Amino acid sequence: MHPESGSVLPAGYSVAVVGLGLMGGSLAAALRRDQPQVRVLGVARREEAVAEALRSDLIHDGGLTLSAILPAADLTVLATPVRTILGQLPEAASLLPPHGVLTDLGSTKQAITTAMERGPRPERCLAGHPMCGKERHGLCAADADLFRGASWILCPGRTTSPEAVRAVGSLARSVGARALIMDAAEHDAIVARTSHLPYLVSAALSRAVAKGVADGDLPALSAGGYRDTTRLAAGDVPMMLDILMTNREPILAAIREMQGEFGRLEAALAQSDEHALAAYLETARRSRRVG
Amino acid sequence: MHPESGSVLPAGYSVAVVGLGLMGGSLAAALRRDQPQVRVLGVARREEAVAEALRSDLIHDGGLTLSAILPAADLTVLATPVRTILGQLPEAASLLPPHGVLTDLGSTKQAITTAMERGPRPERCLAGHPMCGKERHGLCAADADLFRGASWILCPGRTTSPEAVRAVGSLARSVGARALIMDAAEHDAIVARTSHLPYLVSAALSRAVAKGVADGDLPALSAGGYRDTTRLAAGDVPMMLDILMTNREPILAAIREMQGEFGRLEAALAQSDEHALAAYLETARRSRRVG
Repeated sequence: MHPESGSVLPAGYSVAVVGLGLMGGSLAAALRRDQPQVRVLGVARREEAVAEALRSDLIHDGGLTLSAILPAADLTVLATPVRTILGQLPEAASLLPPHGVLTDLGSTKQAITTAMERGPRPERCLAGHPMCGKERHGLCAADADLFRGASWILCPGRTTSPEAVRAVGSLARSVGARALIMDAAEHDAIVARTSHLPYLVSAALSRAVAKGVADGDLPALSAGGYRDTTRLAAGDVPMMLDILMTNREPILAAIREMQGEFGRLEAALAQSDEHALAAYLETARRSRRVG
Repeated sequence: MHPESGSVLPAGYSVAVVGLGLMGGSLAAALRRDQPQVRVLGVARREEAVAEALRSDLIHDGGLTLSAILPAADLTVLATPVRTILGQLPEAASLLPPHGVLTDLGSTKQAITTAMERGPRPERCLAGHPMCGKERHGLCAADADLFRGASWILCPGRTTSPEAVRAVGSLARSVGARALIMDAAEHDAIVARTSHLPYLVSAALSRAVAKGVADGDLPALSAGGYRDTTRLAAGDVPMMLDILMTNREPILAAIREMQGEFGRLEAALAQSDEHALAAYLETARRSRRVG
């Protein structure tokens, strides 16, 4: 059974979610709430994670191995960190039923698209990236509203079938996201700026602030600005490492752009060049675009 | 009449707020709601601002000049940008009634404390800084809850009387803030890290992201991380310029710390040194302290 384009998945359709952390747990929660006619299956490494997902009614059934669950799923979603996805892809693709479709929720897409093209059943595989997240992680942070209003980027490879694009697009829309098609390399270059660079800036800022202010003083002597600009630094380090290591060149280019921008700012302030400072800050203010 | 230490100001006590933007407007709104027995007076440069504050019932009475309002106020609060405060201080202090107290809400304190010490009536003057804000500005963004739970730093100069410290401390507590005493130079060094550096980082990031992503694409191809880390870049540029120009040296030191941190991050990624990257990001994660 395959979903048609639209926001309602067919009755009896089954979705297997591999990895029950923030993203996988949220997808399961959203499907259970918004698409009650769908059967949601879960795969996790730890037995307690499967038990907890069953107890919370996020999944109908679950298991510890891909082979226990994937052959029964119309659509399989790998919701693990990027390098785990790369490791799981060959086995996952080979376990798909004939009509099955495989996608993922990883934050970098070039390496995954290439691996899908070179692996088994490439016509049934489509790399995807819902652009949403939280600094909290794990199943406890799962949120059925996480995908609502988010862009869910689809990066078809040279081998991806239109049927796979339709299936993953329907999944995205079924939980309230907008499905957008994009080239994997273009996606990676853009998220290097809009997502990975902000994370690194947030981490560096968190360290720079800590060097000048005693730990105990920070909560009383900071305000919402510090809290918001360092929020991303609280993210999951192993997950971020996978992202950084699979998108190095675009991220290094973004880092160097940022260093140039920050250097221009330092020079203007060091020279007390108020005119240059004002122009710089006005451009920054107008550059910001939020939805 | 003078407020005693505590959270309730005396009946009939009058507070003049000079500058009816976000901070001044929020203070007036908080006093009107939480201390209805207090008479709130307003001073603004533009007649429409005074009219709007009267219409919104944020003030009981208002005027366009310091001399029209301050002689009748028990406590005067300068809520203008830092360099405007520096310009207003001598006249404002000389207009205080004999028992009057003068304070301010500016974000840098060394220049203001020094100006207060050297100006008229230094024993009646106390520099202050409530650590709260928003990226929106102007009277329309006024929020009676802005000060609730915030730290309100008081920086007594060598000449400030204990009576002035009590009066401003009572004002802070009367709108839900915590009054903390701190040396002005120490305050400026700390906020250079916790507030001014995050603003500059946010501005540089906003520009660096914009250089790699088309304006129209940004809302769809970014998520909460970009929105939060660039939020401060949307701040009021003239107000921020005053802050930067009156706290240059501590901010330059903070900028250089940030450049060092960011350079270490770039080196680890350029060398694919995963061990160093992981250690760096873990330290960043643990460095973050929020209230």
